[in-house]
Amino acid sequence: MQEIKHYCGLFAIAGPEAAAELTYLGLYAQQHRGQEAAGICAADGREIHRRGGMGLVTDAISRHDLESLRHPMAIGHVRYSTTGSCKSDNVQPLVAQTASGPVAICHNGNLVNAGGLRDDYEHRGHIFTATSDTEVILHMLADPKYRDQDDPFAAALRDLRGSYCLLAMWPDRIEAARDPTGNRPLCIGRVGADWIVASETCALDIVQAEYVRDVAPGEIITLTPGKLSSRRFAPPAARCAQCVFELIYFADPASDIFGENVHLVRKALGAALAREAPVDADLVIPVPNCARCAALGYHEVSGVPIGRGFTTNHYVGRSFIQPTQAIRDLTVRLKLNPIRGSVAGKRLVVVEDSVVRGTTTRAKMQSLRDAGAKEIHLRVASPPIRHPCHYGIDFPQREELVAAQHTIEEIGQFLGVDSLAYLSREAMLNCVRESQAYCDACFSGDYPIPINNSFHKAQFERPRAPVAKA
Amino acid sequence: MQEIKHYCGLFAIAGPEAAAELTYLGLYAQQHRGQEAAGICAADGREIHRRGGMGLVTDAISRHDLESLRHPMAIGHVRYSTTGSCKSDNVQPLVAQTASGPVAICHNGNLVNAGGLRDDYEHRGHIFTATSDTEVILHMLADPKYRDQDDPFAAALRDLRGSYCLLAMWPDRIEAARDPTGNRPLCIGRVGADWIVASETCALDIVQAEYVRDVAPGEIITLTPGKLSSRRFAPPAARCAQCVFELIYFADPASDIFGENVHLVRKALGAALAREAPVDADLVIPVPNCARCAALGYHEVSGVPIGRGFTTNHYVGRSFIQPTQAIRDLTVRLKLNPIRGSVAGKRLVVVEDSVVRGTTTRAKMQSLRDAGAKEIHLRVASPPIRHPCHYGIDFPQREELVAAQHTIEEIGQFLGVDSLAYLSREAMLNCVRESQAYCDACFSGDYPIPINNSFHKAQFERPRAPVAKA
Amino acid sequence: MQEIKHYCGLFAIAGPEAAAELTYLGLYAQQHRGQEAAGICAADGREIHRRGGMGLVTDAISRHDLESLRHPMAIGHVRYSTTGSCKSDNVQPLVAQTASGPVAICHNGNLVNAGGLRDDYEHRGHIFTATSDTEVILHMLADPKYRDQDDPFAAALRDLRGSYCLLAMWPDRIEAARDPTGNRPLCIGRVGADWIVASETCALDIVQAEYVRDVAPGEIITLTPGKLSSRRFAPPAARCAQCVFELIYFADPASDIFGENVHLVRKALGAALAREAPVDADLVIPVPNCARCAALGYHEVSGVPIGRGFTTNHYVGRSFIQPTQAIRDLTVRLKLNPIRGSVAGKRLVVVEDSVVRGTTTRAKMQSLRDAGAKEIHLRVASPPIRHPCHYGIDFPQREELVAAQHTIEEIGQFLGVDSLAYLSREAMLNCVRESQAYCDACFSGDYPIPINNSFHKAQFERPRAPVAKA
Amino acid sequence: MQEIKHYCGLFAIAGPEAAAELTYLGLYAQQHRGQEAAGICAADGREIHRRGGMGLVTDAISRHDLESLRHPMAIGHVRYSTTGSCKSDNVQPLVAQTASGPVAICHNGNLVNAGGLRDDYEHRGHIFTATSDTEVILHMLADPKYRDQDDPFAAALRDLRGSYCLLAMWPDRIEAARDPTGNRPLCIGRVGADWIVASETCALDIVQAEYVRDVAPGEIITLTPGKLSSRRFAPPAARCAQCVFELIYFADPASDIFGENVHLVRKALGAALAREAPVDADLVIPVPNCARCAALGYHEVSGVPIGRGFTTNHYVGRSFIQPTQAIRDLTVRLKLNPIRGSVAGKRLVVVEDSVVRGTTTRAKMQSLRDAGAKEIHLRVASPPIRHPCHYGIDFPQREELVAAQHTIEEIGQFLGVDSLAYLSREAMLNCVRESQAYCDACFSGDYPIPINNSFHKAQFERPRAPVAKA
Repeated sequence: MQEIKHYCGLFAIAGPEAAAELTYLGLYAQQHRGQEAAGICAADGREIHRRGGMGLVTDAISRHDLESLRHPMAIGHVRYSTTGSCKSDNVQPLVAQTASGPVAICHNGNLVNAGGLRDDYEHRGHIFTATSDTEVILHMLADPKYRDQDDPFAAALRDLRGSYCLLAMWPDRIEAARDPTGNRPLCIGRVGADWIVASETCALDIVQAEYVRDVAPGEIITLTPGKLSSRRFAPPAARCAQCVFELIYFADPASDIFGENVHLVRKALGAALAREAPVDADLVIPVPNCARCAALGYHEVSGVPIGRGFTTNHYVGRSFIQPTQAIRDLTVRLKLNPIRGSVAGKRLVVVEDSVVRGTTTRAKMQSLRDAGAKEIHLRVASPPIRHPCHYGIDFPQREELVAAQHTIEEIGQFLGVDSLAYLSREAMLNCVRESQAYCDACFSGDYPIPINNSFHKAQFERPRAPVAKA
Repeated sequence: MQEIKHYCGLFAIAGPEAAAELTYLGLYAQQHRGQEAAGICAADGREIHRRGGMGLVTDAISRHDLESLRHPMAIGHVRYSTTGSCKSDNVQPLVAQTASGPVAICHNGNLVNAGGLRDDYEHRGHIFTATSDTEVILHMLADPKYRDQDDPFAAALRDLRGSYCLLAMWPDRIEAARDPTGNRPLCIGRVGADWIVASETCALDIVQAEYVRDVAPGEIITLTPGKLSSRRFAPPAARCAQCVFELIYFADPASDIFGENVHLVRKALGAALAREAPVDADLVIPVPNCARCAALGYHEVSGVPIGRGFTTNHYVGRSFIQPTQAIRDLTVRLKLNPIRGSVAGKRLVVVEDSVVRGTTTRAKMQSLRDAGAKEIHLRVASPPIRHPCHYGIDFPQREELVAAQHTIEEIGQFLGVDSLAYLSREAMLNCVRESQAYCDACFSGDYPIPINNSFHKAQFERPRAPVAKA
Repeated sequence: MQEIKHYCGLFAIAGPEAAAELTYLGLYAQQHRGQEAAGICAADGREIHRRGGMGLVTDAISRHDLESLRHPMAIGHVRYSTTGSCKSDNVQPLVAQTASGPVAICHNGNLVNAGGLRDDYEHRGHIFTATSDTEVILHMLADPKYRDQDDPFAAALRDLRGSYCLLAMWPDRIEAARDPTGNRPLCIGRVGADWIVASETCALDIVQAEYVRDVAPGEIITLTPGKLSSRRFAPPAARCAQCVFELIYFADPASDIFGENVHLVRKALGAALAREAPVDADLVIPVPNCARCAALGYHEVSGVPIGRGFTTNHYVGRSFIQPTQAIRDLTVRLKLNPIRGSVAGKRLVVVEDSVVRGTTTRAKMQSLRDAGAKEIHLRVASPPIRHPCHYGIDFPQREELVAAQHTIEEIGQFLGVDSLAYLSREAMLNCVRESQAYCDACFSGDYPIPINNSFHKAQFERPRAPVAKA
Repeated sequence: MQEIKHYCGLFAIAGPEAAAELTYLGLYAQQHRGQEAAGICAADGREIHRRGGMGLVTDAISRHDLESLRHPMAIGHVRYSTTGSCKSDNVQPLVAQTASGPVAICHNGNLVNAGGLRDDYEHRGHIFTATSDTEVILHMLADPKYRDQDDPFAAALRDLRGSYCLLAMWPDRIEAARDPTGNRPLCIGRVGADWIVASETCALDIVQAEYVRDVAPGEIITLTPGKLSSRRFAPPAARCAQCVFELIYFADPASDIFGENVHLVRKALGAALAREAPVDADLVIPVPNCARCAALGYHEVSGVPIGRGFTTNHYVGRSFIQPTQAIRDLTVRLKLNPIRGSVAGKRLVVVEDSVVRGTTTRAKMQSLRDAGAKEIHLRVASPPIRHPCHYGIDFPQREELVAAQHTIEEIGQFLGVDSLAYLSREAMLNCVRESQAYCDACFSGDYPIPINNSFHKAQFERPRAPVAKA
């Protein structure tokens, strides 16, 4: 049902004996950021131990795994693949043995120059085993070019281009870095004397840690038991590029990221939408679950009563057996079922957070019609998505983005609604404090970080030419 | 987190080749009624085939299972144990070989005379393998006392006391019955020429069937491919006893049961609560997810703005690794995390559907305080629960029901709220059309079906006295 | 590869806290008697706890299972289905709740009057859940007809016909019984103050227990911690009927059963075969593994040098992936591979223990030819199998027994050997001390226990006629 | 029970669509060479696909895996770790992406200069993910130093030191190489137009392929569908070093390796032993299963009757539950149980293939005593093992080799036997045709390939010094 899968969540903690267990909880709280794989590394001062696998945190990490990771520093990762397909080789953290010892790394974002760096290393004779863009960072950390500098990690980061929050682990410390544009969120927390780094503050809540501050763009944080230190590897970018889509869709409403409370921003988006696109109606309903905050905003400004249009089946899992063709159509309602008693005979304002391909939204609108809705006015709490993301969101190709191919009117017809309105870009940016510090390239096509246009996700999986033999 | 687990859901269909697959979907849509075990039987005219196991439908039934069940009649069951512990021997449908062939049965409800019937059969030399009260029905169906009558199933049902919706399968037909008091819901649906029986209408929706009517109290429905017939085994009880708690808590808001739309009843409960227990406040928030409908009703009548107080982690599963004692307290927030941006500094009206032990509610209230709530006024959209249920709801012992032991004021202090109010019994009953047709014994202590006071859930598991040998 | 699967092994011990663990070992040592399912029950004085499942002991019972069975009395069972198909419902011990408490039972043998007893119970209204003949014994133990007698177990046993060694467990004791003909082996052992009953003495060896004596035909042994007592439920049959095929094929060569050492009997069979069917040859080789003892006997008497003709792949498991049709033929050599260096150019005497269908033997002979054998003289250390077994051996139908359908000469041609000889019945019986105490019906057709001719294994699985409804 | 685990088996085939399935069979036939992990790679001309995991072939590779490998070239590996611990990262074949495309490799043997090569690569900035010595070969193949040469594989091989048979796979071909000393066996087979390379000829038998010849020391074989070609990368070593222990213990008796039939060599070893160390006795028995061939040889020369002393439990698996301490001693007889009827009262000659630590042999001798053996004369069909192996056999440290620490007399006392004799080195070498072409360093200490004395198996797992940071 989900048109955009989330991508990655990070968690690191130094200090407590139960570091891996707390990391497990921290990943669990960020499970919405990635459901395809999960992994944890723990360091004991001499070695790095890794456990992980495919699936949800609770599938990928066993109690036995946690027991074998009882060391005072841990980092963890939940993943939806951005670069790299869904293979176990790509479970992060990735670990390597290097001349200066073992190192582990995990990554949220997308490197736009990974292909070039990898080609260069392969040309020099390096071998690659995973298909993700993250592996190239391990090669850089092992490379004497960086290794022999005073601050190898900082030197390597300076040669990365793109979007990244990184956790790196050595046997004696954890380092966390955020790219100079600040594209992805990364925050610092503290519980007692123990320091934490996480993608979202909801991960701090679950371990009852207090939020301290965000990792700054261009900053490296070093965690050791009881101690946190900071240094810069680069100045903040002239143009910061925080992902506005994190606020619109990805992050948990209970989190604070980029200095904003996610719930309040979403409510403000809905309120702005009510001002820009009012409609005479009986009931405002959100499409669960992301649009609930925006629907509240729309309701408050418009005065249209708010209601509940769907029930959600919380037991949907990856293991649902694909039904045979004959009854496949029935599965549309597996996750969302309209509440007939709520919507029948009503003129509805349906609030969505965003529309990507439009096919799922269309099915939802149809199910509301079937349940007796009299009118459907779809209001989208963000602008039309017309451009792909190169910094970590797995939007489909431009050809599949409905708003890249069609006018608003055509989209409304396709979705089968009585009226359709999107929020304007200006109104969207007015909902955040520092609108100039955001990337909204998926809406505007204005890419703040230069990209290689030929990039696409599966690039590292393309078969290479076989070795030509004389 | 859940104080009351749901109990059982039923689904039967006769006609299509994919009967078992549709049953899988129908159980899936009713997964909220039981998460401990699931099973499906299919009949081919000569034999009954069974598959099932512990856990969610998607865990208990594999694709391979469904393939081995491709026969045109199927019945299925999801279970939370009411009588009988969580053991695989109790996965329903139960199947037995009898002198008149194989028979399968599944049950939603609780038989108050099962103990006596079982004692009698054991005394006569019968053996029992499961610990549920349902097994005794198999013995009755095999018993010549009933078997030799014109309508064995009806004859057996007439000797059952208590609450039951039953599905029984013979190789050539399915029969569905509802007890004379109508305690549990059971409805009839139709898709094309195929007939369906299900606990809730949300199971009809998922297979795009239309609702026809409810099975009447005291009625037996017979399903064969393309054909439905009806007969009575008993007149409706003088006093019907539909479970009001189904409307308050168990059923899916998208379902219609007992002739009511669940969502609308819950909204009416919230509205009545606003009239009975108004309070000067800034924000109404529901405790997810059941109280969302009631909170809407409270908001509409009171005029207090409605908001969202918590985010829900949808990835909570049974397999979560129990953390070590040291960090166990942290898990309070695994499922619900308060949205600080929403509740901080606010005077809150928190709407709950019901309060059982009170311990979970207390933790939720504390987390709202921690997130900065200024005042907390808890409003419960049902009366205080003071009496155990003998008809299938797994309430704890009377000693653990907070309202059975304490005054409202004491409960408010225990929960740590600024004010507390429950809905009155009268107001509750005003929210349904035929209030005299309901059982509200958990609130009133007025049990419509006579019970054996010594009954408790694990009675069939108590060790018997060892055989005395001379 | 195996033409006859073994059937069942029993083990019981009373006394030590680790009773279930010792039972696990005892079953493990008897794994050759049944590889399809395994189960263990332990009693704590008040209740009976059961664990088990399909497959080998090591698959069916987990460490966690053993931990949950730490009680001072345990019984266990390994099974190859004789009556009843390969379904988990048939895992033994079977357990039931009865009016006089719980009881568990396991069985080695085959009841020839189980069908009639079951029909009678079903007629009286009893239900059956398993398809094995063992379940009817549970019904008898619960039946007031037996239950009200002074010695219910003895009374029930007196009404059983057929072959049985039984272990029965009540919460406070274990009872072991052997049928009056002594058809299957059952011995008593002792380790310290703890008493053991097992099918074969090799199970005593593994727990370092000493052999005390066999359970006598018609005897019941009662085990409680530290105590063993005995009583008779019937006099020994006028005609004892110990299974000679246990000595020829089933039992472990290290075991003593029926007062004989299995290895020595097999060696004697081979020696007799050399006397009856000498041949001028270069090398005697056994077909692994059962015929190794007989081959030694043949070698010693004949003076023909003994060698090794095949290597055995010990890693053959149930999980071997069935290859696609194209390469299926290759799997003939999965388990046995001829040693070319040993057999090439040689005139071979190949010693087999028995020939059932002949198809597997034929493939083995062909592989010896392919490896360069010059002549193959097959010598079978038992008579031709011409009759089915009704007492627990899963021989195929008469139509599939090669010796029931063909002359010795035809069989030799079918097998592709240069000469073929079987041991005579007289010579076979001369190899045991009390030849009149044996059943050799599979060779002679002389059935010592009257049988119902229509019996066949799957009788309890045949679909019954559906209930006729007016 | 096994004192020496085997190490590795290789199989490769080019041509048939079912290449992976045939590889599965070929590995299965060589399961005795490694039970810890198994893997298969298949090539489709453009890409290399890998499947595998821990455990036996049947555990590590599923039917689904084989279906996803239906390509006309496949290589496979079974492993007992020589270098590298038992971790899934070390499942072979190892696969890497390089500048010239993907490459896969698997290895039987041990590289004595792997440590130095790896240090060098790490120093240059390469990263390592596995802990086996095999990974360094992937780095060499990707290294421009070799990659840019006319024959990169040959060039890389020339810089390897130690023992190796290798299979390398590129998307369009398979290459197989054997080190210039010929330390490990590797043979070429053919079935129809399809070419095979395998460690042992028993793997050819299972796929009904004919043996063509051995891969020569210093030779590279290239396999493509329907085509085999050969080239040399090095001349055969001045001193060949075929592992004599392969003949004594590792290889399957049905195999031909190094131009010898394994069974016949073992029989000759036993015969020589009878000549060197005769004894007046009643019975010769082998310790199962390896010594069965040698025992035949001893018997034939000595004239002492041969018998069977033990039965073997074929169901021993890796999953056997470790019993609690109290009953641990009982498990000595899990695998071998003495046949009392065979050995009681006898003067035994017990033939063993080799003695490593001596602890297991001691337990076996004790169990024979317990079964009533009158005298035990242990005869070992190889010389005393006094030196570790550096070429792939996982002998324990010198301190644990009983013959490195004790005189023959002391060993005899330790083992509790009445007399003990080993075969002399001279007699052993007389049993093979080209005795000068063998390595017997484990007996003689005469290492044909220079070694780095500090080498030990876990060297790549030692924690490195953490990075020192200023």
